[in-house]
Amino acid sequence: MRLRKRPGAMEVLRERPGIVPQKPEQLRGQWTEDKPLHVELGTGKGRFLARMAEKYPSTSFVGMEKMESVLSYAVEGMEQQDNVRLVHGNVSDLQDYFASGEIDRIYLNFTDPWPKNRHEKRRLTFPTFLRLYKEVLSPRGDIHLKTDNEDFFTYSVEQFSRNGYHLNNLTLNLHAHEPEDNVRTEYEQKFADRAQRIFRVEAYLPE
Amino acid sequence: MRLRKRPGAMEVLRERPGIVPQKPEQLRGQWTEDKPLHVELGTGKGRFLARMAEKYPSTSFVGMEKMESVLSYAVEGMEQQDNVRLVHGNVSDLQDYFASGEIDRIYLNFTDPWPKNRHEKRRLTFPTFLRLYKEVLSPRGDIHLKTDNEDFFTYSVEQFSRNGYHLNNLTLNLHAHEPEDNVRTEYEQKFADRAQRIFRVEAYLPE
Ligand SMILES: C[S@@+](CC[C@H](N)C(=O)[O-])C[C@H]1O[C@@H](n2cnc3c(N)ncnc32)[C@H](O)[C@@H]1O
Ligand SMILES: C[S@@+](CC[C@H](N)C(=O)[O-])C[C@H]1O[C@@H](n2cnc3c(N)ncnc32)[C@H](O)[C@@H]1O
Repeated sequence: MRLRKRPGAMEVLRERPGIVPQKPEQLRGQWTEDKPLHVELGTGKGRFLARMAEKYPSTSFVGMEKMESVLSYAVEGMEQQDNVRLVHGNVSDLQDYFASGEIDRIYLNFTDPWPKNRHEKRRLTFPTFLRLYKEVLSPRGDIHLKTDNEDFFTYSVEQFSRNGYHLNNLTLNLHAHEPEDNVRTEYEQKFADRAQRIFRVEAYLPE
Repeated sequence: MRLRKRPGAMEVLRERPGIVPQKPEQLRGQWTEDKPLHVELGTGKGRFLARMAEKYPSTSFVGMEKMESVLSYAVEGMEQQDNVRLVHGNVSDLQDYFASGEIDRIYLNFTDPWPKNRHEKRRLTFPTFLRLYKEVLSPRGDIHLKTDNEDFFTYSVEQFSRNGYHLNNLTLNLHAHEPEDNVRTEYEQKFADRAQRIFRVEAYLPE
């Protein structure tokens, strides 16, 4: 997300420790007691996360975002709710925040496609990331991915298949028959307004 | 392929034993001595197979087709060439014709999508078929699939991923940047004329 650095972003995060835990590493392994834990990686301004948390009160949601400025907007758009938290951090450090098998579902929504080959390692579906997710996902955990980028999509599908994930609900045009329970993200809304195709797939760990 | 039964089709097949071996079961395990063996399943009128055989003289091609009438047109369109044969048979009986590990590549071109759920078992990418292919494919063998049918395509990709195949070269619009070495089938040509999207994927057996 291209965004000017926002003065005072850090203060915004500090003011809402109920939403942005000050030492998120200390919650490792204890984000929830009995609710399923769903984590969005690269959560942006948090539209999706906020709505999901409202819609599914018995699921615990965490959004992870590396850019403080972006995250500060997410914080402001969020009601105090006991089932949603935000972490200012980088996905590469996922294991610092989450214990093995702790996450039931990962959302990858419109994450940066990094189209150049030399940037392949930065894509959040590069094999090193897929291995990382395997560590933190629970035995029947899964990943829900949405994107507008065709090349990133086909790349991701191939990588999932080669790294031990099985695929489900593969859709090449999500908005053609938009499922009732689909929650649009900021980016998704923007692309929908331009009538661009949205791709979606679920990848799960077989038993 | 909807086609009226053609009188005299059987005779056409009998007249060309060099192309249509009379007892194909007896060739099981010995289709080629040292050439790689590529088999097209549901070969239709054989356009693809004939052109591939011309283009790749050091590969041995076999086309399998269950409808005698359709196959008789394929026979007529084919030059006598020592690297192409046709089998009148059903894919379900694949193992009667091919030994374990004998096939290096399987082509599935525009095979019937069987859109109704209750016909799922007939799709040539139903799990029972994918297991059959695994038996006859060589250790580094693969399957090249092309189709115009989006639902059959997404179904097939999911099934490959869940049945031990890894994916490669997934393409959602083959003709947008048609690879130089793409050989169009009859159906593909027809769909291209109507500017319909063609989907393609390769599925390989990991080592
Ligand atoms: C293109 S935006 C999409 C935002 C939102 N998910 C949506 O669908 O509208 C991608 C977001 O992912 C964040 N991001 C990218 N790589 C990340 C990483 N390695 N760790 C954490 N956040 C990351 C970016 O800062 C950006 O805010
Ligand atoms: C839609 S046509 C496509 C023909 C050709 N491959 C093309 O791309 O133009 C599918 C063909 O597969 C054949 N077929 C379908 N199921 C089959 C099976 N189980 N065994 C052998 N052939 C089959 C049909 O008879 C038909 O000729």
